[in-house]
Amino acid sequence: MTKVIINGANGHMGQVITGIVSKDADCEVVAGIDPYTEKKNDYPVFAALSECDVDADVIIDFSNPKAIDSLLDFAVEKQIPVVLCTTGLSDKQIEEVNEASKKVAILRSANMSLGINTFLELLEKATKVFADAGYDVEVVEAHHNQKLDAPSGTAIALADAINEAADGRYTYTYDRHDRRQKRDPKEIGISSIRGGNIAGIHEIIFAGEDEIISFKHQATSKAVFGKGAVEAAKFLNGKPAGLYDMRQVIAAKG
Amino acid sequence: MTKVIINGANGHMGQVITGIVSKDADCEVVAGIDPYTEKKNDYPVFAALSECDVDADVIIDFSNPKAIDSLLDFAVEKQIPVVLCTTGLSDKQIEEVNEASKKVAILRSANMSLGINTFLELLEKATKVFADAGYDVEVVEAHHNQKLDAPSGTAIALADAINEAADGRYTYTYDRHDRRQKRDPKEIGISSIRGGNIAGIHEIIFAGEDEIISFKHQATSKAVFGKGAVEAAKFLNGKPAGLYDMRQVIAAKG
Amino acid sequence: MTKVIINGANGHMGQVITGIVSKDADCEVVAGIDPYTEKKNDYPVFAALSECDVDADVIIDFSNPKAIDSLLDFAVEKQIPVVLCTTGLSDKQIEEVNEASKKVAILRSANMSLGINTFLELLEKATKVFADAGYDVEVVEAHHNQKLDAPSGTAIALADAINEAADGRYTYTYDRHDRRQKRDPKEIGISSIRGGNIAGIHEIIFAGEDEIISFKHQATSKAVFGKGAVEAAKFLNGKPAGLYDMRQVIAAKG
Amino acid sequence: MTKVIINGANGHMGQVITGIVSKDADCEVVAGIDPYTEKKNDYPVFAALSECDVDADVIIDFSNPKAIDSLLDFAVEKQIPVVLCTTGLSDKQIEEVNEASKKVAILRSANMSLGINTFLELLEKATKVFADAGYDVEVVEAHHNQKLDAPSGTAIALADAINEAADGRYTYTYDRHDRRQKRDPKEIGISSIRGGNIAGIHEIIFAGEDEIISFKHQATSKAVFGKGAVEAAKFLNGKPAGLYDMRQVIAAKG
Repeated sequence: MTKVIINGANGHMGQVITGIVSKDADCEVVAGIDPYTEKKNDYPVFAALSECDVDADVIIDFSNPKAIDSLLDFAVEKQIPVVLCTTGLSDKQIEEVNEASKKVAILRSANMSLGINTFLELLEKATKVFADAGYDVEVVEAHHNQKLDAPSGTAIALADAINEAADGRYTYTYDRHDRRQKRDPKEIGISSIRGGNIAGIHEIIFAGEDEIISFKHQATSKAVFGKGAVEAAKFLNGKPAGLYDMRQVIAAKG
Repeated sequence: MTKVIINGANGHMGQVITGIVSKDADCEVVAGIDPYTEKKNDYPVFAALSECDVDADVIIDFSNPKAIDSLLDFAVEKQIPVVLCTTGLSDKQIEEVNEASKKVAILRSANMSLGINTFLELLEKATKVFADAGYDVEVVEAHHNQKLDAPSGTAIALADAINEAADGRYTYTYDRHDRRQKRDPKEIGISSIRGGNIAGIHEIIFAGEDEIISFKHQATSKAVFGKGAVEAAKFLNGKPAGLYDMRQVIAAKG
Repeated sequence: MTKVIINGANGHMGQVITGIVSKDADCEVVAGIDPYTEKKNDYPVFAALSECDVDADVIIDFSNPKAIDSLLDFAVEKQIPVVLCTTGLSDKQIEEVNEASKKVAILRSANMSLGINTFLELLEKATKVFADAGYDVEVVEAHHNQKLDAPSGTAIALADAINEAADGRYTYTYDRHDRRQKRDPKEIGISSIRGGNIAGIHEIIFAGEDEIISFKHQATSKAVFGKGAVEAAKFLNGKPAGLYDMRQVIAAKG
Repeated sequence: MTKVIINGANGHMGQVITGIVSKDADCEVVAGIDPYTEKKNDYPVFAALSECDVDADVIIDFSNPKAIDSLLDFAVEKQIPVVLCTTGLSDKQIEEVNEASKKVAILRSANMSLGINTFLELLEKATKVFADAGYDVEVVEAHHNQKLDAPSGTAIALADAINEAADGRYTYTYDRHDRRQKRDPKEIGISSIRGGNIAGIHEIIFAGEDEIISFKHQATSKAVFGKGAVEAAKFLNGKPAGLYDMRQVIAAKG
C-alpha cells in the first residue's frame, strides 16, 4: 500500500488523481495540500506542506512552479519521494530539482502517460525488426487548433526513440508537397494535423510490402497524466535518492 | 441486363472486370478484345474490335492510348456507349474523345472508384453542416513510397469539393512545422504519408468541440476501379450521346 | 442573431453551451435559469423560468424531467421555441411534450450530435450506392466499461437508417464466433467494444472488392451534444409550432 | 549473403519471394524448383529438388503438402535449413517435420508475418504495463466475407499471448448484445468484422482513463508472409538442427 500526499489536491489534476487512487487497491491518499481548503475530500487538506504532519510514502505534485522550493525542502527533510508533474519550471528550478534528487527520489518526465512511455519502450524492438526489414517509418500527430507548435514534442520524442534504435540513420521530413520524387528510405515523415479541441493523438506507422503496422495513442483529456502519476508513485515508494523518469516505471513492469 | 464488351480483356484489369461481372446478376460479358487471344474465358475473345460482331450494350475499355482511335470509331459506328478507363491520353486524344461523345455516350473520370466518387458527392452536404458550425477540415492521404507527387490528385479533388461547397473560403496548408501559431480556421491542412506499397488511403476529418468525424477510403489494389467501371457500364446502358463522369453514376443512385 | 435562454445554465451542459455560444457570432445567451444562482456568468441567471422577463428567441433546455411542466407552460405562454435536451422523460411527459408542440416549436432528438445526425442523413445515399453494388455493411461501436446495454442505441439507429435505405433487406448479426459459414450478404454485423471511459465511437464500414469505406464518429465528451443544441436553436428561431428533430436541422443546411 | 532456393518458385508466393529478395542486399535466389519450368527468372528453375545441384544456404518452401517428403529428404541429405511455409500438413506430416528437425534446422510458424509476430513479442510488455494499471483489453479483427471461422486463429493467438502475460486471468467474450451489465475487467472482448475481400486486419486495444492505445496490423495481401519468410531465411542461415518459429526471428533482432 502506497500512502500518497497530493500537492495541489483541489485543482483539476488533484481531483483526477483522487478519483484514480480511489479505485486502486494498492494506493491511498492520506492528505492533500491546497491553499483552497474548503472543498470536501475523503482525506484532510492542509493549506501548506509545512502544516502537514501526516505520514506518507510519496508526494504527487500537480501544483505550480512557485511552490517548488517549499516542496523540495519538505521532501528532502521528511525523506518522502516526489512525483513532480508541475510543468513550466525555469532552468534554475530544474537545477534545484536535480540537486534535491541527490538527497531524495524525484521522478520527472516530459510526458507522464503510460501509453506514450510504453511506446517509447517498445519502439526500440519494433524499430529493430521493421526498419531492418526495410519498412518505412512515419509519425502522425493530431492536436487542437490552439496549439502553437508543430510537430508536438511527443511526436519528436517518438521519432527520436526510433532514430536512436536505428543508429541515427534517419532524417525528418515535414512537407512533401513541393517536391516530385520517390520517398527516401532514410527519412521519417512527420505529419501534424490540427483541428477542433483534439487533446492528443500520436500514431507511428511502419509500412512494408502489403503490410501496415500502427502504434496509436489517443489521450482524450489530460487525465492520462494522472494515471501515469499514480503508477509512478507506486514505483517510487521506497526508492533511494536519485532522478527517475517514466521509462523506468515502464521498464520495472515485467 | 447489361451486355458488356471488355476492351483489353486479358490484361490485369480486364480479368478483374471479368471476375466482378461474373458475380453481378445485372451484367454479363458477351465478348472480349485482346491481341493476346489464347487465354481461356467464358466469352469469345477477338484480336481486334473490327473482328467483333457480338451484340452489346456497353464497352468497358482498359486498353491503352494507342487503341483509342479504333475504339472511338467502333463505338460511334456501332452506337455502343464506352466506359473509358484508359489513362495517359494526349490532349489531342482527349479532344477526339470529346468530339466522339457528341455522337455516342462516353464516360470518363479522374478516379473510377465508387468510394471516392461517393465521398465527392456527400462532402457537399457534410461541408455545409460541419464547416458552417465551425469545425476544422483536414485531409490526410497515404500512398506507396514510389509515388512522385504529393498530395495525391484525389486528395486535392476532395479538398476542392469541400472548398467549392464552402464558397471558396479555404486555402490549403501542407506544412506546419516551421511556424508557431494557432491554426487558421480558413485553412484546410493536407498531409501526405508515404510508405511501403500502400495502394491508396484518403481520409477527410472534420474536428469540432469534442467531436471527430472521419470519412476514410482505402483502396487495397487497383481492382476498385474495376467495380466502378462495372457500375458505370450499367449506368451508361441506353444513355444518349454525351460526356459523362462517375459523379453522375453516383447521383443516379437513389 | 438568435437570443437564447439556457434552462439549467449553471449545470455542466449549461456551461458547455455558454462556452459554445460565446464563440458563435450568430447567437447570444440573454439569460440563464438555475436554482443555483451564485455562479458568475456574463448574463443574468434567474432561479426559475417564472422570474425571467428577458426577451428571447429560443430556450435550450438541459435541466431535468421534474422541470418539464413549468418549461412547457412558459414556452407556450411566451411563444418561445424549445430545444429540449433533457433525457429520461416518462411516457406521460413525452405525451405532454407532443401536446405542447402543437402550440409552440419543440425540437427533440435521440442523439443531439451534429456528426451522428449528419451520418444518418448521408447514409441513405451511401447505402444506395454501396449496397446496390454488393458491398458488405458493418457497424462497430465502442463505449466505456460502465455501459450496460449493447449495442448502443445510436449504433442501432445507424443500422436502421441503412436498412431503411435498402428497403429492409438486412438482418443484424451480433456474434459470429459460434458458427462456421461464409458471411450472408443480407446481414449487417454489429460489434460492440467496451473499455476504459470511451465516451462514444461509432463506425460504419462498407467493404467491397479491394475497397474499404468508413464513416467514423468519435465523441470525446458530452460536449458534442452542446454544439448540436446550439445549431438546433439557430434553426428553431422563428419556426412555427410543431415537433422537430435534428435531422431537419441537418437537412436545412445547404 | 544468404543464398536461397525457392521451392515452388513459379507459383504466386514463389514470385512474391523472388521480388522481395531482388530488393534485399543480404539475400539472393540461386535456384528455383517448380514442375512448371517455362517461366523466365533470373535464376535456374529445376523440375524437382533431386535435379538441383546448386549450392545454397536455405530453402524457402511455398509448395504443397504432397512435396513434403522429398523436401525433407533433400534438406536432411544436403544439410540445408528449411523455412517451411506450406500449410495444410497432416498430423503424420507434421510428425515427419519434427523428426527431420532433429537433423536439420526447420522453421515453421502459424503466421509468417513480421508484424503479427512482433506484436506477439511486444504484447507481453504492453500487457504487464496496461493490464496491471487496470486498462481493459479488446481484440478486433476483420476479414473477407468468404472466411468460415471467427474469430481468426491469429486473433486468438494474440489474445492468448496477452492472457499468458497476465497469468491467465482473462476469459474471452464474443457477444455482448444479449446481456445488460457492466464490462467485467477480467474479460477480453473479441470482435469479428466480415466484409468484402479484406485480407486481414488485427487490432489490440488497451482502454484506460481517457486513454486509448491501439496496436493495429493490416495485411493487404498474402505477400506479407513472403517478407517474413525472407527474414526467416536470413535468420536460419547457419543454424544447427532444431525446430524454430517466427518469434525467434523477432527475438534475435536487437
